[in-house]
Amino acid sequence: MNYRQTIAIDAMGGDIGPSVMVAGAAKAHGSIDSARYIFFGDQAKIKPELDKFPEIIPHSEIRHTDKHIASEEKPSVAVRNSKDTSMRLAIEAVRDGLADGVVSAGNTGALMAMSKLILKCLPGINRPAIASVMPTIHGKSVMLDLGANLSCDAEVLTQFAVLGAVYARVVQGITKPTVGLLNVGTEDMKGHEELRNAASILSTVEFPGVYYGFIEGDDITKGTVDVIVTDGFTGNIALKTAEGVGKLSKEYLTQAFKSSPLAMLGYFLSRGAIKKMKAKVDPRNYNGGMFLGVNGVCVKSHGGSDADGTANAIMVAANLVQNGFNQRVAAQIEQLMDQESFISVVGV
Amino acid sequence: MNYRQTIAIDAMGGDIGPSVMVAGAAKAHGSIDSARYIFFGDQAKIKPELDKFPEIIPHSEIRHTDKHIASEEKPSVAVRNSKDTSMRLAIEAVRDGLADGVVSAGNTGALMAMSKLILKCLPGINRPAIASVMPTIHGKSVMLDLGANLSCDAEVLTQFAVLGAVYARVVQGITKPTVGLLNVGTEDMKGHEELRNAASILSTVEFPGVYYGFIEGDDITKGTVDVIVTDGFTGNIALKTAEGVGKLSKEYLTQAFKSSPLAMLGYFLSRGAIKKMKAKVDPRNYNGGMFLGVNGVCVKSHGGSDADGTANAIMVAANLVQNGFNQRVAAQIEQLMDQESFISVVGV
Repeated sequence: MNYRQTIAIDAMGGDIGPSVMVAGAAKAHGSIDSARYIFFGDQAKIKPELDKFPEIIPHSEIRHTDKHIASEEKPSVAVRNSKDTSMRLAIEAVRDGLADGVVSAGNTGALMAMSKLILKCLPGINRPAIASVMPTIHGKSVMLDLGANLSCDAEVLTQFAVLGAVYARVVQGITKPTVGLLNVGTEDMKGHEELRNAASILSTVEFPGVYYGFIEGDDITKGTVDVIVTDGFTGNIALKTAEGVGKLSKEYLTQAFKSSPLAMLGYFLSRGAIKKMKAKVDPRNYNGGMFLGVNGVCVKSHGGSDADGTANAIMVAANLVQNGFNQRVAAQIEQLMDQESFISVVGV
Repeated sequence: MNYRQTIAIDAMGGDIGPSVMVAGAAKAHGSIDSARYIFFGDQAKIKPELDKFPEIIPHSEIRHTDKHIASEEKPSVAVRNSKDTSMRLAIEAVRDGLADGVVSAGNTGALMAMSKLILKCLPGINRPAIASVMPTIHGKSVMLDLGANLSCDAEVLTQFAVLGAVYARVVQGITKPTVGLLNVGTEDMKGHEELRNAASILSTVEFPGVYYGFIEGDDITKGTVDVIVTDGFTGNIALKTAEGVGKLSKEYLTQAFKSSPLAMLGYFLSRGAIKKMKAKVDPRNYNGGMFLGVNGVCVKSHGGSDADGTANAIMVAANLVQNGFNQRVAAQIEQLMDQESFISVVGV
C-alpha cells in the first residue's frame, strides 16, 4: 500500500510514554488521510499497546531502542548524549526521508535543539519558532514564538510573520491572513526598537499576509488578527498566563456550581451546554506546538497529554505535511528576501 | 473637623468624567476612615453631581479649572500643555501638602510622566512601577510593573521587589510576603540576564519579603507568590492577556447558558452562585493601578470605570495613605542600598 504520509513518533517522551502515544495515533488515524506510523522506543512496551488497537497495526512499525531522553535533563546535556535515543532516531527518520514529520512529548529544549541540529532551518530562516493555535471569540488564531527564542530582532520577527501567514493560508485556508505584532500599545512609537523595525518592514513588503499593526494582550483572545507575532519570552509568558486564567475560571465555575443545592441542580440542567463550552477551550484540542521554520515537520505534544491531546498533536503534524507547509514557506521567504524594503531595514 | 486623609481627584479624566468620579467617591466614603475629597475640574459639571450625594458634600471641595488633558493626547505633548489642567492641579495638591494622594482616570502616560516630574521618585528609587492587585486561586497577589518601564535592569527589578513586598506587608498584612520573578522557566539559567542578576541579588539581600525564585505565567493565577515582579513590557502583555482570557471565558459561559431552554433554566437556578463567582474576578474590584515608587500616592483608575470601579481606585489610594506606604518604602530602600550583596551586583 502507498501512504500519503509517514509520521515518526517518539514513543518514550512525555510523562506517560508509549500508552498515550500509541492510543493517540489510533485516535488520530481516522481523521488523517492515508498515514502510517513509525514508533521509536522500547519494543517490549510499545508492542502490547499497539496490540490494543488492531486497526492501526497494519499501518504501524516499531523501531526498537532502549535509550531515551529524560524530561528533566538539561537540553545541552541531553543532546550530547542523544545517540540512539527514541527522540533522536525519530528526528533522523525525517532527515533520512523515512518519515515526513515527527511528534514527541519529550523534553522541549532537547527536541528544539536536535531539530535545528539534525533537520536544519528552512533556507532563509534564521531561527525556528514554536507556534500554536489559540482559541478566540471568533474562532482560532495562530501565535508564535511561544518560547524558542528569548529575544528576536526585526528580521526574525518578520520571518515569523511569514511562517504564521503561510500557516494560516495553507493549513487554515485563510486567503488573506491578518498579522499583528504583540506590543504594549497600538501607536507607532510604542514598544522595543525591534518591534518598531519589524512593523516598518511588514507595512511595506509583500508577504502572504496583510500586516494589521501592533496589537495588545487582550487582542489575542479577541481574534483581532489571524496571526500573532511576538518574541519567545513574551509569547511564552502570554501563553502560560492565558492557561492560568483559563484554569482559574474553570476552578471558580466548579466552586460556584458546588456552592449550593440550587446551583448544583442548575449545573445538572445546563451540564450539556457547559461541557460544549469547556471543549471549546480544552487544552487537548489545541495540543501540538509546531516548530515552524525547521526543515522538516516537527511537533511537540504536551508532556502530560492524554490520548486525545496526543491525537491532536499528530493531526497537527499531518496537516503540515499534507499541505506542503515547508515547501510553501521556502518559496515565500525567498520572495521576501528579494524585496528592497526588507533589505533596506535588515541589511544584506 | 480633622481628617485623617485628603484625596485629590481629577474629576475630568476618563471616558465618563465627573459623574463617575463623584459617585465613586460617594461609594468609597463609607469604607474609608475619615477622608475628605478635593475635586479638580469644571465646577459647573462637578457641582450638580456632588448635589446627588449630600452625604459627602460636607467632606468635599471643588477647585475649578476649565482645562483638562485629553485621553488620546501623546503624553509628552500633554505634559507640555498641562498647566492648570485638572490632572496637574490634582498632582500639585499632593506635592503642596494639600492632599495625601491623587486619583485620576485620565491619560496614563501623562499621569505617570507628571507624577515623576512633580512628585519625584522616593529616595533611592530609580523608576516608579505600575502595580495592581490580581485575583488568584488562593486570594490576591500584587504584580508590578504593568507598563511604566519597557525594560528594567536588575537594580530596578530589585527595587520593584521591595515596593511589592512592602505593599503586601503593610497594606495586605502579609508578614513574610513571597516574591517571584516572572520568567519562561524556573531553572536558574532561564531568561534574560537582568532577571538572572535580579535573582542573584534577591536571593542574598535582606528585604521585607522572601525571595521565592523564578515563576512562570500560570503561577500568576495559581497564587504561587504574593508579589510578582516583571518589567513593564512583559507585565502589560500578561495583564492584558489575562483580561482577554477572562472576557473570553465570560463570553463562552454566556453563550453556553443561552444555547438551550434547559441551559437557560440551569442558569436561572445557579445565577446567584454564578454572580458571586463573577464578582470574584470582576475587574471593577481590582481597579486602581498604583504608581509605586513615586513620592506621593498616585492611583490610576481605568478610563472606562463606572462608579464601583472608581470607588475601588479611591480605596486603593486611601489604603496606601493610611498605611504610610511611602514612608515604609523609603526606610526599606535605604536598608537595601547599604547591603554588600546589592552593591556588588549593581555597582555603586
